[in-house]
Amino acid sequence: MPNTGQRIVMKFGGTSMAGIERIRHVADRVRREVATGNQVAVVVSAMAGETDRLVQLCKEAAPLYDPREYDVVVASGEQVTAGLLAMTLQGMGLNARSYMGWQLPIRASGHASALIEGIDVAVLERVFDDSGIAVIPGFQGVTSEGALATLGRGGSDTSAVALAIAAKADRCDIYTDVDGVYTTDPRIVPRARKLDVVTYEEMLELASVGAKVLQTRSVGLAMRYGMPLQVLSSFEDLPGTMIVGEDGSNLTTGTVMERNIITGIAHDRNEAFITLTGLPDRPGTVAAVFRPLADAGINVDMIVQSAKSAGGMSDLTFTVPKASLAHSVDALAKVREAGGFQELLTNTDIVKVSVVGVGMRSNAGIAALMFDTLAERQINIVAISTSEIKVSVLISEDYTELAVRVLHTAFGLDAPAASLDAGAAS
Amino acid sequence: MPNTGQRIVMKFGGTSMAGIERIRHVADRVRREVATGNQVAVVVSAMAGETDRLVQLCKEAAPLYDPREYDVVVASGEQVTAGLLAMTLQGMGLNARSYMGWQLPIRASGHASALIEGIDVAVLERVFDDSGIAVIPGFQGVTSEGALATLGRGGSDTSAVALAIAAKADRCDIYTDVDGVYTTDPRIVPRARKLDVVTYEEMLELASVGAKVLQTRSVGLAMRYGMPLQVLSSFEDLPGTMIVGEDGSNLTTGTVMERNIITGIAHDRNEAFITLTGLPDRPGTVAAVFRPLADAGINVDMIVQSAKSAGGMSDLTFTVPKASLAHSVDALAKVREAGGFQELLTNTDIVKVSVVGVGMRSNAGIAALMFDTLAERQINIVAISTSEIKVSVLISEDYTELAVRVLHTAFGLDAPAASLDAGAAS
Repeated sequence: MPNTGQRIVMKFGGTSMAGIERIRHVADRVRREVATGNQVAVVVSAMAGETDRLVQLCKEAAPLYDPREYDVVVASGEQVTAGLLAMTLQGMGLNARSYMGWQLPIRASGHASALIEGIDVAVLERVFDDSGIAVIPGFQGVTSEGALATLGRGGSDTSAVALAIAAKADRCDIYTDVDGVYTTDPRIVPRARKLDVVTYEEMLELASVGAKVLQTRSVGLAMRYGMPLQVLSSFEDLPGTMIVGEDGSNLTTGTVMERNIITGIAHDRNEAFITLTGLPDRPGTVAAVFRPLADAGINVDMIVQSAKSAGGMSDLTFTVPKASLAHSVDALAKVREAGGFQELLTNTDIVKVSVVGVGMRSNAGIAALMFDTLAERQINIVAISTSEIKVSVLISEDYTELAVRVLHTAFGLDAPAASLDAGAAS
Repeated sequence: MPNTGQRIVMKFGGTSMAGIERIRHVADRVRREVATGNQVAVVVSAMAGETDRLVQLCKEAAPLYDPREYDVVVASGEQVTAGLLAMTLQGMGLNARSYMGWQLPIRASGHASALIEGIDVAVLERVFDDSGIAVIPGFQGVTSEGALATLGRGGSDTSAVALAIAAKADRCDIYTDVDGVYTTDPRIVPRARKLDVVTYEEMLELASVGAKVLQTRSVGLAMRYGMPLQVLSSFEDLPGTMIVGEDGSNLTTGTVMERNIITGIAHDRNEAFITLTGLPDRPGTVAAVFRPLADAGINVDMIVQSAKSAGGMSDLTFTVPKASLAHSVDALAKVREAGGFQELLTNTDIVKVSVVGVGMRSNAGIAALMFDTLAERQINIVAISTSEIKVSVLISEDYTELAVRVLHTAFGLDAPAASLDAGAAS
C-alpha cells in the first residue's frame, strides 16, 4: 500500500478481542495500518461475553442497581482489552500505550447510557506527534464529578466515531465479525448481498431495527459530522461497506451509489411489549404513563392505543428494549397505584421486522407491498411504525425468518443465483 | 453490641468476594458493623482467581509485559468487586458508594509493585460525616502522571492498612478465609493452634515466609504506625487474632501475651532458586549479578556462594520469587554475555520452611534443634537464612509436610489432644 498519510481511528469489537490469539491478530492488523504511514488510534470493546457477564453480576447483586456503580463494574471489560492490546503492540516493537476514558479525558454525562460531551485531544495529538499508537477502551468516559460513565451497550462504536471526529481523523474503520453491511441477515437469507455503499440514514434505520453491525448512536454522530465510516471484517482482508452521506460527498473512491428503492430488511428481537389495560379516558393519561419511563431514561418505540369500552376505558400497547423491561415495570408501578391503568401485561416473544431504503421517500407502495407479503403468509401484525426511510412491523417471534425471507424476495433484494456462494460464505 | 463509635477499616479478601452470594454475606457483615455505630470504610480484593486470570492474560499477550499496561489490566478485578459491593449495600438501604484509587486519590509510585505515597482523605471524611460507607478497591492507586498503578500481589492488605492510617482509624480488620493466625498450616498439622495475639514482627516473618494470611508490606506498615490489626474469618463470627506491638501497647483487651519462644512454623512454596556456575574470581562479580536484578525490582532472598575449583571459579545460588523467575533469567542474560558466569540453572521444586518467634532472640539453640530435627528425617538443607526472630531453610518441596510436622512437634507447638477437634475444624 502507498503511504497515504491519513489519520485513522480503528475500532475492534468484542469478537475481535475475544482471547489473546485474536488480540494478536488485531495487533497485526494495526501494525499493517501503521506501516502504510497512517496515524492510528485504536478503540477496543471488551472480550465477547465479558460485558454480559458483568451486567449479570450487577443484576444478581442488586436487581435495581445504581447506574453509577454499574458503570464502575462494566467499564472494567474494556480496560482489560485496552491494556492487553497495548502490551501486545509493544511486544511487536510498536510504540503503543493505553489511555482510559478518564485519562484523556473523554467527558461524558449521565450513567449507564451516558452521552459523550467532548474529548480532549491534547494527549492524543502528542501521541500522534510521537508516532505512537493510542489504545483507548470504548464504551466509557468520565463525568464532570470524576465518576466513571459508560455509554450503553454497543457504545464502543460511538466512542470510536466521537474520537475520530475530535481528532479530525480522515476515516473511522469499524472492524467486526461480519465483512460489511448486508441487505439482510445472511444466516436467514443465504442470497443476501453485501452492500458496497450505504447512506448514514439507511444505516441508522438498519442499526436501529436490529442489523447489529453498528450502534445507532455512532451512525447518527458520524452523519452529523460527516465522518466517513467503513465496516469491515477483523478476520479477512476484504473490502467492507462504506457508510457515507446521501450525496456521496464522503465517497472518495468514485464508486457510484446504488439507488435501489429498498436497501435492506432488518429485524430486532430486543424489544418487549407492554400492554396497559383500563386507562381512564381523561387528558394526561398517556403522558402520566410515559413521563416516569422518560425519567428513567427508557426508550419507548412503537405505540398503539385502542379506544375500547363504552365506559371510556382504553388499552395502551408500546415496546421498550427487553433490557429495560424490569425497570419499566418498576417505573410504572406508581402510575398504577395512582389509578393510571388497571392491568400490566408484558410479552417478550416478539420481533420487529423493517424494510429500509432512502428511495422509499418517493414510493408510497412500500408499506402496501410489505403488508400484502406478510398477509399472504398469515403473519399477524401487532403494531406498525414508519419513518421517512423505513416501515417496521411488530410480529410474533416465531415468524422472524419466514418474514425476513419473503420480504427480501418481494423487494427484489435476492442476489442472482450465481453469487449465492459468495453471499452464503459470510 | 454497644455503640462503640470507632472508625474501622474492614478489608475482605478474594475468597470472601468470590461471587454474589458471598458479596451479599460481606455486605451483611458491613451492615452489622455500621449498626454498632462505627464509621466504616471497606477495602476489597478481586474475586478469588480473577487476578490470576488477568495476570495469565498479560503473560500470554506479552511474556515481558509492560508493567504500566499490566496495571491497567489487573486493576480491573477490584474495580468490579468494589462496584458490586457498593450496589449490594445500597440494595440493603445503606448509603454506600465506591471510590477508585484514582478518585480519592490513593497516590502511588511505580508499576506492578507500586508503593503507596499517600492517601487524600478529604473525600473519605465527607463520606464519614455523611454516615456513608466508602467502598474502595484494594491493590491500586494512581501515579503522579495519572497512570493506574497496582501494589503487587496481596496488595489489598496494604491498601487497607494505609487507608486506616491515613483516616486515623481505630483498627483495621482483615477478613479472610481463615479465622486467625495459626502456629502453622492446619491443613498440614491438625494440631496447629490459633494464636490470640501475635506481634507485628512475628507476623512479618510469618507472612514473609509464606503463612499467607497477610501481605508482608501491610504488616510492616501497620507496625511503623502502630495500627492495630485483626485477622478474622469472613464466614464465621469468631474472635480472630490481634496483631499488636511487642509491648502490647495496642492491646486494649487486657489479654496477656503468650511468651513462647517459638510462635509458629511457616513454609513458602513461591520461591525458585537460580544457580550460576563459573563465576570468575574477581571483585564485583557478585555485584554484577545482583545489580540488574535490583534494577528489575526483583527480590533476592537466600544467597549461597561456594568457592570451587583451583581455577578460582565459584558458583552462586540464590532464590527469587517464582513469579520473577522469567524476568530474572532475562535480566541475567546480559551478565552472561559479558562473561559474568558460565551456566544458569533453575529449580522451582523447593520450599522454604521457617521457625519464627520473638523469644528466639535470647535462645541460641533454635537453629541447632531445627537442623537436628530435619537431619533425623534425612531432609537435606540447600540453603539457610536467619533473622533476629526467624531461622529459614530451603529444602526439596517433596518434604514440605514432613518438615513442618516434625518441627511443629519439636518446638512444642502441638495443641493438647483435647483441643484437636477445634484446631482441625479450621
